[in-house]
Amino acid sequence: MAEALRLAEEARGRSAPNPNVGCVVVSPAGRIIGRGATASGGRPHAEAVALKQAGTRAEGATVYVTLEPCAHASDRGPACTDLLLARKPARVVIALKDPDPRTAGKGINRLRRAGIEVSLGTGRDAAKRSLAGWLTRLNLGRPRITLKLALSIDGKIALPSGESKWITGEDARRHVHLERARSDMILVGRGTYLADQPRLDVRLPGLEQSAPRRALLTRGEAVDGWETLGNPRDVYRLHDVNDLLVEGGSATATAFLSEDLVDRILIYRAPIIVGEGKSSFGYVGLDAIADAHDRWRLVDEQRLGVDRLEVYERAARD
Amino acid sequence: MAEALRLAEEARGRSAPNPNVGCVVVSPAGRIIGRGATASGGRPHAEAVALKQAGTRAEGATVYVTLEPCAHASDRGPACTDLLLARKPARVVIALKDPDPRTAGKGINRLRRAGIEVSLGTGRDAAKRSLAGWLTRLNLGRPRITLKLALSIDGKIALPSGESKWITGEDARRHVHLERARSDMILVGRGTYLADQPRLDVRLPGLEQSAPRRALLTRGEAVDGWETLGNPRDVYRLHDVNDLLVEGGSATATAFLSEDLVDRILIYRAPIIVGEGKSSFGYVGLDAIADAHDRWRLVDEQRLGVDRLEVYERAARD
Repeated sequence: MAEALRLAEEARGRSAPNPNVGCVVVSPAGRIIGRGATASGGRPHAEAVALKQAGTRAEGATVYVTLEPCAHASDRGPACTDLLLARKPARVVIALKDPDPRTAGKGINRLRRAGIEVSLGTGRDAAKRSLAGWLTRLNLGRPRITLKLALSIDGKIALPSGESKWITGEDARRHVHLERARSDMILVGRGTYLADQPRLDVRLPGLEQSAPRRALLTRGEAVDGWETLGNPRDVYRLHDVNDLLVEGGSATATAFLSEDLVDRILIYRAPIIVGEGKSSFGYVGLDAIADAHDRWRLVDEQRLGVDRLEVYERAARD
Repeated sequence: MAEALRLAEEARGRSAPNPNVGCVVVSPAGRIIGRGATASGGRPHAEAVALKQAGTRAEGATVYVTLEPCAHASDRGPACTDLLLARKPARVVIALKDPDPRTAGKGINRLRRAGIEVSLGTGRDAAKRSLAGWLTRLNLGRPRITLKLALSIDGKIALPSGESKWITGEDARRHVHLERARSDMILVGRGTYLADQPRLDVRLPGLEQSAPRRALLTRGEAVDGWETLGNPRDVYRLHDVNDLLVEGGSATATAFLSEDLVDRILIYRAPIIVGEGKSSFGYVGLDAIADAHDRWRLVDEQRLGVDRLEVYERAARD
């Protein structure tokens, strides 16, 4: 299942609008005989890829998949449940049940009725985390929104002049590129677009093809090759984006925070003091310190060279 | 030696102007038969306390001490080397040699000439860390200066109104009180004094007596019970302070940073976003991002409830 989860993460950023799923087929002797992750654009599904690789050896094998196999065929491809029924594995281990109440359990039931042993729950929490983008879209009607910032110890993003190259180092920047590769769309504000002419591409070996869609937050003129959002609430119109990465600047970040449209914040913290400089955010609607608490939870931190990544998640909204 | 180091840390904040030393006497069978830490005001020394406890059982025992025993008697007390020679331990284990080149090695030589085995270096790095305040005063002519701040994720210390109660929680505040107990003097600026009327006491069970000296950074009127510094550079006049804790506010912190008079920064980071608010620091003299790097090193971090403590140390100054 760990391998299936790893494959699921690789598919994040390319599987939209479908969920990013991972699937592994293991022979009775314990050897991996098939691997699959949701392909670009969402089809074929992970199970289809893995089962094709395993071929006839899938019979009697164990299949690990991070999300309940779909039970309905569509224009775009067969139902994975049907593919599994045809290949007759002995057992299917599923991390997460289909969260859609209209279809939940259907794949599982069909497999069991055919005599295939189905086990549910292994790696469930990890699967939920890897599917956070798609699940957010299912539950909230908009992508999961991640805000990314490079900050000094004292929370500055630049000198008063606007100079910010470079607050954080190489390792941090590589991590940002990886996060871009795993996003379906990247958004910046017009200020950042004009000041930095950002390429917003993924400059990592092997991942150069994964440049996500680029969007500009602006009420003004559109830009060639970039989609436009006039307002943060326009994210509710992005029906085929699971993970949206907001890369700033300060006005854009403030706008999203003010509307409480941020689910996750990636702070790349440099061990430097800027002193007088541009703050991360402007007025986000906070009028009393007491109201600031219990909104964010530090869920992960790691060293990236001399810098540090702090990952905060939005606590459950009331 | 670990126990001796622990005792040394307990003496920090009360031993000034003397170094905070810890000493443990262990019988040949391996039992601790004497313990001592430098007493309030600097005398008696740790070795004197520990040897008194051990009494005649110190003969043939092993003595662990975090700093080379002093070799010269003074008005205030006998030389620890003489006390050791009188008690005849078999072995003396010293973490750190006397850093003063005029006296370094004298205690060690006298012990060895008397046939006592002396070993040097166990726990040396830890001993240096515990003596950082005293060593700074010896080397730089001023106390080690620690700056303490409670900050939001975005580096704010308060709302625009100045409201800051409470950015961080109970666990963080307890840690601050412990840091006060281990300091010889606490300093705030007049702004903080007027706004908060801070007590700057130590509200921890058993440590209520350790309230350090209080100082005000001001060019104006002195305050009863508080010492006065007119300028950060006045720290060079504090000959009997090993550890100075600067508790803010923003103007005071900025003044010390501008003069490069901060050796260590304790950031108590709350998982909250303030948005528009008071920044940690003003202009500290930085004109280019490139100059900000390589000044601070993250040396420790720990969770304190939902908050986090980040400890930065000043990298070696050129």
